[in-house]
Amino acid sequence: MNRSVSEFELIAKHFAPLARDAAALGLTDDACVLPEQAGRELIITSDALVAGVHFFPDDPPELIASKALRVNLSDLAAKGAEPRGYLMALALPRSVDDAWLTCFARGLSADQTVFGLSLLGGDTTATPGPLTIAITALGFAPQGSMLRRRGAQPGDGVFVSGTIGDAGGGLQLLQGAAGRDEGSEFLITRYRQPAPRLALGRALRGIASAALDVSDGLLADLGHIAEVSHVRLAIEAALIPRSLPLQELWPGCDGLVKAATAGDDYEIAFTAASETAVFAAASAAGVSVTKIGRVEAGEGIVLLDEAGAPIPVAKPGFTHF
Amino acid sequence: MNRSVSEFELIAKHFAPLARDAAALGLTDDACVLPEQAGRELIITSDALVAGVHFFPDDPPELIASKALRVNLSDLAAKGAEPRGYLMALALPRSVDDAWLTCFARGLSADQTVFGLSLLGGDTTATPGPLTIAITALGFAPQGSMLRRRGAQPGDGVFVSGTIGDAGGGLQLLQGAAGRDEGSEFLITRYRQPAPRLALGRALRGIASAALDVSDGLLADLGHIAEVSHVRLAIEAALIPRSLPLQELWPGCDGLVKAATAGDDYEIAFTAASETAVFAAASAAGVSVTKIGRVEAGEGIVLLDEAGAPIPVAKPGFTHF
Repeated sequence: MNRSVSEFELIAKHFAPLARDAAALGLTDDACVLPEQAGRELIITSDALVAGVHFFPDDPPELIASKALRVNLSDLAAKGAEPRGYLMALALPRSVDDAWLTCFARGLSADQTVFGLSLLGGDTTATPGPLTIAITALGFAPQGSMLRRRGAQPGDGVFVSGTIGDAGGGLQLLQGAAGRDEGSEFLITRYRQPAPRLALGRALRGIASAALDVSDGLLADLGHIAEVSHVRLAIEAALIPRSLPLQELWPGCDGLVKAATAGDDYEIAFTAASETAVFAAASAAGVSVTKIGRVEAGEGIVLLDEAGAPIPVAKPGFTHF
Repeated sequence: MNRSVSEFELIAKHFAPLARDAAALGLTDDACVLPEQAGRELIITSDALVAGVHFFPDDPPELIASKALRVNLSDLAAKGAEPRGYLMALALPRSVDDAWLTCFARGLSADQTVFGLSLLGGDTTATPGPLTIAITALGFAPQGSMLRRRGAQPGDGVFVSGTIGDAGGGLQLLQGAAGRDEGSEFLITRYRQPAPRLALGRALRGIASAALDVSDGLLADLGHIAEVSHVRLAIEAALIPRSLPLQELWPGCDGLVKAATAGDDYEIAFTAASETAVFAAASAAGVSVTKIGRVEAGEGIVLLDEAGAPIPVAKPGFTHF
């Protein structure tokens, strides 16, 4: 970076205005400080994004900022947490200039307003490598109400919010040379800017028996619920909700398997005993939810065709690792 | 990395054993969860280290781990916080193998035992760039007791723990080709493995009027206290505590200025009204503390020689930016 300013000036210009919460101390101290409350639990998650791995280095800086924040908010959403703020450790290559940082901070600012957040602290350093953004997000929930991956019971239904596979389709479009239409723009936006299901997560407190956010692929992530809950999840392939643009891009049974194993959905997958309670919560949160299967005794996850026969899945998820 | 294992296997093997606190949920969920307590405040800090910027890529992995953790603990120490745990976002280049990670995790484990910590969560990803370690550390303090940078009052004394400049000397030795003796090993260890002054920080609750940890250089960091407290800090150069090996490496007045502007000390610099209370706290914590100056009305920071005349300082601190 051709930096005409020091790290302190950079923080004062771009990041101090994002420290809207008194807990951040205006980013003028070594740490942030949050008074605790009896009867509440603090829920914390951390996710890092690396240029060239999780996003394209020439993506719009506003969208890079938004994605970095939202993948963390999606974790909080799936836990039923009310987000409060975040700390951000930024490793900046020399190619990042003041104009880029202005746009990046604008993206954070817009999302802070949308989600009611504040920057609480962090660190800025130089790197000879790619831009790296490590965010730690904090939220609250009433004591004992956090949704866990553990807790699915035989007899529960399996549900997922929104549509699955869109972001995977968007990534394929960004990597390819194919022309783009309105449908492909939808898929690309789903890749670049996840929509954390915060209202749904909160509405599912006390209703979902297990929950997580879908980031590595629907089947891979449901596999985590099966593993830690010691149950088997039977998913009916035809029920997995897919958008029309994705059905056009990835048609047929092959397309369905691709959708169920692509990453970056940032929807909530969960199990629950009461279908009625789930759809009331989804309605209150204004988010579509689809029942896609059932929890059984046993272990692992199985994808079933319409005749109830298992569909072989070579690779259940996507990994950036 | 020639990874024969998946990200999940890597976490299960190297990092899950570090999740000793129930709040970490064994690293098997999307987030950690900490029950809050009335009358307590949560103190959070985040610092990232990049290979080739903050440490040498071929430094022993145990010491890289220890430094990454300790620079964060040093922030908590300076705030008077009792550390509880940390989240870690790791970006791993392909060159990092299983043996390296085994040593890295061993370094974290040893420090967790020393400082009573647990890994609470985090993220592991690949990077085409250098190894990057972003740690977010959490601690607690009784409500309202966190030491702040703001609060220094005219009439207060200025104090610092330990000795200053050692790490800067150690860095110079590591960068140079000079032979090493016992004294130089001391300086190199001071660079590679900071000693966070946690007991001292806690003992200074209610005694220090302002405090921070010295990471960018004593004068630069004291400058932050002066700025946010709206006071002037007058420092007597001859009083700045220096180890014997550093006095040999960096002799004279020039050496003194170098020591006061080198980074990576990770000592606590603070102001306080009662010298008696400070030395009682230092004694209880088993850490040496030296009075190096006084707080005056005005602004900025001034380094004084033995005749009371200002010593010019070209560059008050060190920055990795």
